[in-house]
Amino acid sequence: MILNDYLLSGNGYKVRLLLSMMGTAFDYVERDIMKGETRTPEYLEKINPNGKIPALVLDDGRVLAESNAILTYLAEGTNFVPDDRFERAEMMGWLFFEQYDHEPNIAVLISWYEIKGLPENADILGPMKQAGAKRALDLMEKRLSSHNWLVGDALSIADISLYAYTHRAELGKISLSGYPGIRAWLDRIEALPGYVPITWTP
Amino acid sequence: MILNDYLLSGNGYKVRLLLSMMGTAFDYVERDIMKGETRTPEYLEKINPNGKIPALVLDDGRVLAESNAILTYLAEGTNFVPDDRFERAEMMGWLFFEQYDHEPNIAVLISWYEIKGLPENADILGPMKQAGAKRALDLMEKRLSSHNWLVGDALSIADISLYAYTHRAELGKISLSGYPGIRAWLDRIEALPGYVPITWTP
Ligand SMILES: N[C@@H](CCC(=O)N[C@@H](CS)C(=O)NCC(=O)O)C(=O)O
Ligand SMILES: N[C@@H](CCC(=O)N[C@@H](CS)C(=O)NCC(=O)O)C(=O)O
Repeated sequence: MILNDYLLSGNGYKVRLLLSMMGTAFDYVERDIMKGETRTPEYLEKINPNGKIPALVLDDGRVLAESNAILTYLAEGTNFVPDDRFERAEMMGWLFFEQYDHEPNIAVLISWYEIKGLPENADILGPMKQAGAKRALDLMEKRLSSHNWLVGDALSIADISLYAYTHRAELGKISLSGYPGIRAWLDRIEALPGYVPITWTP
Repeated sequence: MILNDYLLSGNGYKVRLLLSMMGTAFDYVERDIMKGETRTPEYLEKINPNGKIPALVLDDGRVLAESNAILTYLAEGTNFVPDDRFERAEMMGWLFFEQYDHEPNIAVLISWYEIKGLPENADILGPMKQAGAKRALDLMEKRLSSHNWLVGDALSIADISLYAYTHRAELGKISLSGYPGIRAWLDRIEALPGYVPITWTP
């Protein structure tokens, strides 16, 4: 398996973190998104027509894109997915929430300050994204103030997915100080066997 | 089963369309999002803390939110989900694409013109969303210009999910004229047994 990825991408890190926790070997290929390395004709044709990382090339050459879809593929039938059908659907709900309400606000703010610099309309988009980030964190806090994990009573790929950008929210100038439930959950994940930081590659 | 929904919501329509195609009976409760009926203390506490439709109340009282998670729950183990593990992951990839690249552009433009009116910064957000809509449709066309369905050689919930807003794109002033593959696919879906229009309720 070869993971096409970019070291500072939380979407890529989700996949690396799961693979590390599962103890699954893989090869890593860095694609510098700031140099357009996911937008070359070759990458678009052979790896991902959507021009993004992460993209996982399986041993038979087939390719999977979309971070959360890669997580569901790798985790199927393992302890990282609940056995119960309803809990599995709740887990999926958090994964869609991550892509719809969380990542477009929190990941984007992080990338402005850490990677890309402020865009042209930051004065208009910034407050919208800060408000969206707060709504997303409020919803997570509601759950995590009284539960250890997002779904049921065990870690699942919902936790891994949402950990990726939440633990770096402050880089996007989003304060986590009002979120004790979230902060305890971050610590809980960091104490798990196989945990690796975002800068880790195999 | 009770579906909390709003008639003009494509996210809700996905669920109604799948339930109709499956021939599954359900009750429908309209929540007028324009009157804040998903933001009442009661709705937030008992139905969906995220304050949105669709939300499906199961017969045992448990509630599922997130349109695409509801689809995965209802379709699990049916013909609407591929048997093959890799194809299942591709299907998930399209569902995440729908929430990340497609809905936030296409659904939002439709809702401006059809439901909510233009927001304050439409002059800035509009062109961004039009460009995003085009990128999303281009990616779908790439697949659908040479395949009948988004995944494998059969309809799946990826098609149902992406149909919901694509077939109304022109209401958002997004032209489908350059997308013959997409238009043929829309026709194919509309010819299926159990197909119902967005205005349908049980
Ligand atoms: N929905 C996708 C989003 C992936 C994404 O946005 N990747 C970014 C890096 S975090 C990227 O590759 N950007 C490069 C580009 O768009 O050119 C996922 O979850 O995998
Ligand atoms: N990611 C959610 C999005 C749902 C959503 O945005 N629902 C809208 C209608 S299409 C809503 O309920 N809006 C009312 C509100 O936010 O107050 C899903 O796929 O179900």
